[in-house]
Amino acid sequence: MTHQTDTIVACATPTGGAIAVVRMSGAEAISITEQMFRPRGRHLIADAEGYTAHYGEVIDAEGEVIDDVVLTLFRAPRSYTGENSVEISCHGSAYIAGRIIRRAIDCGARAATAGEFTTRAFLAGKIDLAQAEGVADMIASTDRATHRLALNQMRGGFSTELRGLRDELLRLSALLELELDFAEEEVEFADRTTLRDIMTTIDSHLERLIDSFALGNALKEGIATAIVGAPNAGKSTLLNRLLNEDRAMVSDIAGTTRDSIEESIVIAGRRFRVIDTAGIRSTDDRLEQMGIDRTFSSLRRATVVLLVYDCSKWSDHEDWHDAAESVRSDISKLQISDDQTLITLLNKCDCVSAEFVSALRGELSGEVVAISAHTGEGINQVMAALSGIAEAMTAEASDTVVTSARHYEALSNARWALGRALEGMDSGLPSDLLSEEIRQVIYHLGTITGEITTDEILGQIFSKFCIGK
Amino acid sequence: MTHQTDTIVACATPTGGAIAVVRMSGAEAISITEQMFRPRGRHLIADAEGYTAHYGEVIDAEGEVIDDVVLTLFRAPRSYTGENSVEISCHGSAYIAGRIIRRAIDCGARAATAGEFTTRAFLAGKIDLAQAEGVADMIASTDRATHRLALNQMRGGFSTELRGLRDELLRLSALLELELDFAEEEVEFADRTTLRDIMTTIDSHLERLIDSFALGNALKEGIATAIVGAPNAGKSTLLNRLLNEDRAMVSDIAGTTRDSIEESIVIAGRRFRVIDTAGIRSTDDRLEQMGIDRTFSSLRRATVVLLVYDCSKWSDHEDWHDAAESVRSDISKLQISDDQTLITLLNKCDCVSAEFVSALRGELSGEVVAISAHTGEGINQVMAALSGIAEAMTAEASDTVVTSARHYEALSNARWALGRALEGMDSGLPSDLLSEEIRQVIYHLGTITGEITTDEILGQIFSKFCIGK
Repeated sequence: MTHQTDTIVACATPTGGAIAVVRMSGAEAISITEQMFRPRGRHLIADAEGYTAHYGEVIDAEGEVIDDVVLTLFRAPRSYTGENSVEISCHGSAYIAGRIIRRAIDCGARAATAGEFTTRAFLAGKIDLAQAEGVADMIASTDRATHRLALNQMRGGFSTELRGLRDELLRLSALLELELDFAEEEVEFADRTTLRDIMTTIDSHLERLIDSFALGNALKEGIATAIVGAPNAGKSTLLNRLLNEDRAMVSDIAGTTRDSIEESIVIAGRRFRVIDTAGIRSTDDRLEQMGIDRTFSSLRRATVVLLVYDCSKWSDHEDWHDAAESVRSDISKLQISDDQTLITLLNKCDCVSAEFVSALRGELSGEVVAISAHTGEGINQVMAALSGIAEAMTAEASDTVVTSARHYEALSNARWALGRALEGMDSGLPSDLLSEEIRQVIYHLGTITGEITTDEILGQIFSKFCIGK
Repeated sequence: MTHQTDTIVACATPTGGAIAVVRMSGAEAISITEQMFRPRGRHLIADAEGYTAHYGEVIDAEGEVIDDVVLTLFRAPRSYTGENSVEISCHGSAYIAGRIIRRAIDCGARAATAGEFTTRAFLAGKIDLAQAEGVADMIASTDRATHRLALNQMRGGFSTELRGLRDELLRLSALLELELDFAEEEVEFADRTTLRDIMTTIDSHLERLIDSFALGNALKEGIATAIVGAPNAGKSTLLNRLLNEDRAMVSDIAGTTRDSIEESIVIAGRRFRVIDTAGIRSTDDRLEQMGIDRTFSSLRRATVVLLVYDCSKWSDHEDWHDAAESVRSDISKLQISDDQTLITLLNKCDCVSAEFVSALRGELSGEVVAISAHTGEGINQVMAALSGIAEAMTAEASDTVVTSARHYEALSNARWALGRALEGMDSGLPSDLLSEEIRQVIYHLGTITGEITTDEILGQIFSKFCIGK
């Protein structure tokens, strides 16, 4: 991907609002503007400084007015792309934005492809690749957690961290290569023990970053939360109740199966993907058994499991020991792993005595909340528990959290290469081969920020952007 | 509606694109900006001139960054609203735009209501009411014709015309009132013949504007075009064929009845509402008869009627005299009015000989086009005919075309009052009462541009705007 200087144009906002913004960037951006824009004052756009706004009209080839607009001018290199750029703020009709774009094209611009403005920012060295990906994540952010991660990445937090590692590795590799120049003299510029220590430190740093991907992915996709329990325990009522708490931030994702519904909900700035599953019971019905199999599959993939119990079934006998025993037995069958968090919900708690609920809670370990999905009792506690889990996940993580599968793969490759370098050192690999292994680590880290890149990588990254960014 | 100076904030673009624009206006807009925006350079926003852009970050109450943005500053009175204003161009996430708006509200702004920015522009005297309505029409414009009308209205073309009429009426009324001061002397400052001439001229001017509403409405809503004909004449195939010509500009409007489908299509910059109707034939089936009744109702409302004939039914007999006679008889049953334009389409023209088609066309009056909806033959001619009709409609009209029902009503009221003044003059009404009638005309014209206005009128107009405009 060579650095193109032709001038690109696109609408940077969806149309249908009060205003739309058409963005243009490239060597000819200002001369094209001069052809199609007539400023209201007597001044010339060609003479205007960067970071100035201008009221005027966009005119077509016949000099007829297309719209009254405010045009903002940016001069290279002080612009998003590093090139001359203008942003035209027009009335928010798709027809008008389309006319303005067509006019720009007639004057010599070209329709921008997806992410082409940001590609140019990258090629001009304004931002690195990880930052560019942060821009896309910013646009896609829907809650406080993903917004914070994206902002940190866009502003270069992750890149700075990687640059630190890379610089250290470059220094090591330079020292090893220095030894080659003095090969006859058998000098060791790089003390092998110190070298090993540094490499081990980097290795654990990489490990931490790689591990953070589980969290990053959970935050980005939403923390997977499965609601499980017997049929009619009140699972769907619970789901509706949770959704009602924050209706505005809810979106519907149609389930792939009739009996497994997935909804997205934001609690205290973190997104949860809540999956309502088929009720679990012994059955001879093959279709129902398939639903239950799917429940277990959702359960295994979940980070949080909400196990819902119907307390009303215990209302006639009062032996809470037996009740607790049956709950424990059910829990053991669910085979909750150490990575998962279980919250036991005693639903329809208003159908039994408070003493019974209290005694049952005392018998059970872990987080137990008495609720009534029907009346809403205890729901705030469930939300608080979920929020606490998200809080704990975030607290465990380092400042930098890896959210991109591409970065995860590059870090894994880097760590694998580092492992080979460490092995090589143990087996007395000559310094030139050792240096070569370290160069591999540097290479993989470089693909993240884009020091090392290919057209294919760039194409993959920027094609995911929207047009106009 | 008193002129409020509190500071309002809203998102002026839909979110989900590359960027979103948050707009703020009011006396405190700049001081609120100072609290929430940290410019990248060392300069202060408070010192910045209007029409300048500033790169920097929006920060929350804890000083944490919400987003990197470009902020454009406008100082009163040189802004859209006439007040101090800022526009914040941020990343296009609804979450981020929402955070920025909430931050502005925390700093002292208030969420804007629909159309509140434009209301302020009106109250500040930046634009009159007809221009404000033109702004809304601009945003809603979807084709060249409606765009041109809206632009003319927004830029004050209509207002200037009305102001001319109003000034003349004010002059007349002032002359009449002068007579009152010299009542004893029985002077006639306003020569009654001249007065009558001027009023008659204004009357015909109003009549022309009122008449233009039929066109304005047709252009705004789309020119109503009914496709009628016998069952299986190829009406739906024709509709699909017309839609295929310009797929991108097509929108679907679900019919209220199963058998009457309405589609919107733009031909040469004009929008047509094409209605595919139930086939007309004699029937005993009550449901089918209801469909046919609806066809006639669509037919009566249409500006253009496309009558489709299936030529293949004539393929075995060659008496084109009889065929023409039956077509003429069918047409007379349709009772096409003088205001409507009929185009007769000889469909499936490839099923009969070219001689037959040619002879038939010769026998029929009006616009006749031989087509094959199936192969597409002749469709360009149909489009050209439709485009020609729209062209003729526009050419008939004066420069100003009334597109708003509110303006139509005000103009009708003004003309009615003018009629009474003319009558009064004929019956020798004293000048004070005559002057009062003329004041009524002035009043009604004043409601259009907003010289005369009420909170109710303003509320009705601006509530139709989107938030952020």
